Amino acid sequence: MENKIPYKIYLEEDEMPKSWYNVRADMVNKPAPLLNPETLQPITEDELAKVFCRELAKQELDETTPYIPIPQEIRDFYKMYRPSPLVRAYCLEKELGTPAKIYYKFEGNNTSGSHKLNSAIAQAYYAKQQGLKGVTTETGAGQWGTALSMACAYLGLQCHVFMVKCSYEQKPFRREVMRTYGANVTPSPSMTTEVGRRINEEFPGTNGSLGCAISEAVEAASADEGYRYVLGSVLNQVLVHQSIIGLETKAALDKYNIKPDIIIGCAGGGSNLGGLISPFIGQKLRGEADMRIIAVEPASCPSLTRGVYAYDFCDTGKVCPLQKMYTLGSGFMPAASHAGGLRYHGMSSIVSQLYHDGLMEATSVEQTKVFEAAVQFAKVEGILPAPESSHAIRVAIDEALRCKETGEEKTIVFGLTGTGYFDMVSYQRFNDGVMTDYIPTDAEIAAAVAKLPKIGL
Amino acid sequence: MENKIPYKIYLEEDEMPKSWYNVRADMVNKPAPLLNPETLQPITEDELAKVFCRELAKQELDETTPYIPIPQEIRDFYKMYRPSPLVRAYCLEKELGTPAKIYYKFEGNNTSGSHKLNSAIAQAYYAKQQGLKGVTTETGAGQWGTALSMACAYLGLQCHVFMVKCSYEQKPFRREVMRTYGANVTPSPSMTTEVGRRINEEFPGTNGSLGCAISEAVEAASADEGYRYVLGSVLNQVLVHQSIIGLETKAALDKYNIKPDIIIGCAGGGSNLGGLISPFIGQKLRGEADMRIIAVEPASCPSLTRGVYAYDFCDTGKVCPLQKMYTLGSGFMPAASHAGGLRYHGMSSIVSQLYHDGLMEATSVEQTKVFEAAVQFAKVEGILPAPESSHAIRVAIDEALRCKETGEEKTIVFGLTGTGYFDMVSYQRFNDGVMTDYIPTDAEIAAAVAKLPKIGL
Repeated sequence: MENKIPYKIYLEEDEMPKSWYNVRADMVNKPAPLLNPETLQPITEDELAKVFCRELAKQELDETTPYIPIPQEIRDFYKMYRPSPLVRAYCLEKELGTPAKIYYKFEGNNTSGSHKLNSAIAQAYYAKQQGLKGVTTETGAGQWGTALSMACAYLGLQCHVFMVKCSYEQKPFRREVMRTYGANVTPSPSMTTEVGRRINEEFPGTNGSLGCAISEAVEAASADEGYRYVLGSVLNQVLVHQSIIGLETKAALDKYNIKPDIIIGCAGGGSNLGGLISPFIGQKLRGEADMRIIAVEPASCPSLTRGVYAYDFCDTGKVCPLQKMYTLGSGFMPAASHAGGLRYHGMSSIVSQLYHDGLMEATSVEQTKVFEAAVQFAKVEGILPAPESSHAIRVAIDEALRCKETGEEKTIVFGLTGTGYFDMVSYQRFNDGVMTDYIPTDAEIAAAVAKLPKIGL
Repeated sequence: MENKIPYKIYLEEDEMPKSWYNVRADMVNKPAPLLNPETLQPITEDELAKVFCRELAKQELDETTPYIPIPQEIRDFYKMYRPSPLVRAYCLEKELGTPAKIYYKFEGNNTSGSHKLNSAIAQAYYAKQQGLKGVTTETGAGQWGTALSMACAYLGLQCHVFMVKCSYEQKPFRREVMRTYGANVTPSPSMTTEVGRRINEEFPGTNGSLGCAISEAVEAASADEGYRYVLGSVLNQVLVHQSIIGLETKAALDKYNIKPDIIIGCAGGGSNLGGLISPFIGQKLRGEADMRIIAVEPASCPSLTRGVYAYDFCDTGKVCPLQKMYTLGSGFMPAASHAGGLRYHGMSSIVSQLYHDGLMEATSVEQTKVFEAAVQFAKVEGILPAPESSHAIRVAIDEALRCKETGEEKTIVFGLTGTGYFDMVSYQRFNDGVMTDYIPTDAEIAAAVAKLPKIGL
């Protein structure tokens, strides 16, 4: 059997998932409800539907439907870049001299360069179905904005991206990819929204922040009935869409009767991690299988490993609903880490609840160690990984080396969420030996956590 | 049957080619022999082996072996990123409203971003087999240098890349990818070679040229018995390795009983084009099948459509063997076109002979039209194509639109050689509406052609 496992396992088109999996339906302890930031009461579908598309508001609150059918048009779009391969890392195993069997689910083989496209097409599709003209969003590093631009171009929707000003200026390539796909890209803070003008006035010459860009995108969506706001991570709906990653992974493993012992994913807002692990968590919850599940976060922004489990704002501007999650406080400012996609102060409420219930573990790693793993991986497996994804590589390698010591032939599966082609400035810092690590002190975290809203639940 | 053709046709591992195909074995008129630049006599294997690895020198001169077995270690490396998918462009067909069936062979799903890796791993492998310490090469836009760096990292070989100075400075990301893979990257002209020092002295502040970088790489290889020089296009050996593209394409088409009517590839030095078309040319030569084959070159550098068929130098420095080919003259300076990979003055001698014998057609296109096609393709098919590859997209779209007029359901196959992630400066010029076209005048071409070496054969 073993000999027959190919380097890359591709599902056939008719083996691809026809529904997303909503892990909340199997969870005994559901995530705590989202709260309306004005009333502090659980938010209703009607309230959510003012900001999000109606169908997405529904998915956001749906705790009972385990399988949500994927509309045919989205399945057709998925066929253009999915199934993504589940790759057996034969070369990495050989390099490490480990008896462990290592697999990675590679989500970077599309122009957005990451898994973000899985949810972007879904959110754009429902906006189109609702007869909207377009959507607004924010982007920091640019992966989400790129993915959304691609989805909107495909469906003929308008796409307005507020890009954090420093990224807009420092990452002109990302910006141009979005423009090539027809998106309207505005550096944030801009003079086109009230909040943007206010911030520009208050902080002349500011480089912007994700929190500010979110506020501008929400305002721009609210100002035009033909628009809604969309978001690339953290939300329940996003984890539902990203379950395609885990469903495909599980189908590919099942096809060759492979039983994973450890599943590893990097964790920022939780979209990739939640999507990858959902079907496996489902197995654990239903008592069908057991395995270790490990979330890997940067030591510079350790929400799961050093944060508190409490209600907090999802955005710095405090316009989005509050959610109960592991958080460092919405005022926590992570150090300038190069894994831009992992610099979020909180964590998806689904992932937070699963972690709180002991269904998964979490660990944090420092970025120089992460880049060491990235380069080691790139040289033998060919793919140049994104810094975010490389957090999972680091821990996969560490677990494989542990197997080398113990002689255990464990099966390790990790999520390789994307490529690092637009992260060469970070690689250059690493190659030049000038990359540094930063770990916040207990006092810094305590100070940020002390400012959490006081909501007992 | 038609309904069963998936969006992407992947071969199984056991369906992948085990040998490369050497089209010269089936050619009635063989390409004219390479000439030693000093003696102007046909070059011998021993002479070639001073610059190239022995096995590669052998492949360069082999006109009789139709199938050359691919060593197992290279086949293992291929498995990491191959088979590349043959994609049915359902969305592009719908967008164009054409009855034509369009397929593309996508070679961009690897970190080098192009097909160059297919030959890089082969050349590095033979260098390793010969017990060499490393290889030297030049790179312009950077794809070849990246591919070679990856191959050398995998095999533990040293890699010394001379990168044209203006690219070294303007494309720091490409440079960093190579450095990440452990390559030694030197801006050319450098002070590390005699020819580099001479050029720096003669032209202070020069930005370098491909011709100069070739000369430096050859000198560096000659100076150390543990090194050989390798090259990413034009040569016969490169076309042999790149035949993997055409062999996989043919196997995928055969698997679904698809008969191509038109095969289209972009043409610079001819590596991708030659590799893609070789097995189909073989069918034509053996009378097994017939189809149109079209080479697409940039109007700014039209070697096949406006050059002459004659002996010429392959490099500006005139240190490499001379070959008979369609050429604009080694002194021809193409305008600053953005399709860097297609700015070569000549053409592979195999492709030249096939064109001369009427086995294929050639056409040239202007770059603004090329970028229009690129953006149209990107929006519906998701992939952001390299400018070079987009030359083939342009002609594929034009042929499909012709089918729309005539109602013919032709099957069109084109080579999508790579992605454009590192070409966003060009896309920006296009997006901003400031891209221009340049077509050389007859007088300009005549002047360059007049300087060809006078070798009658």
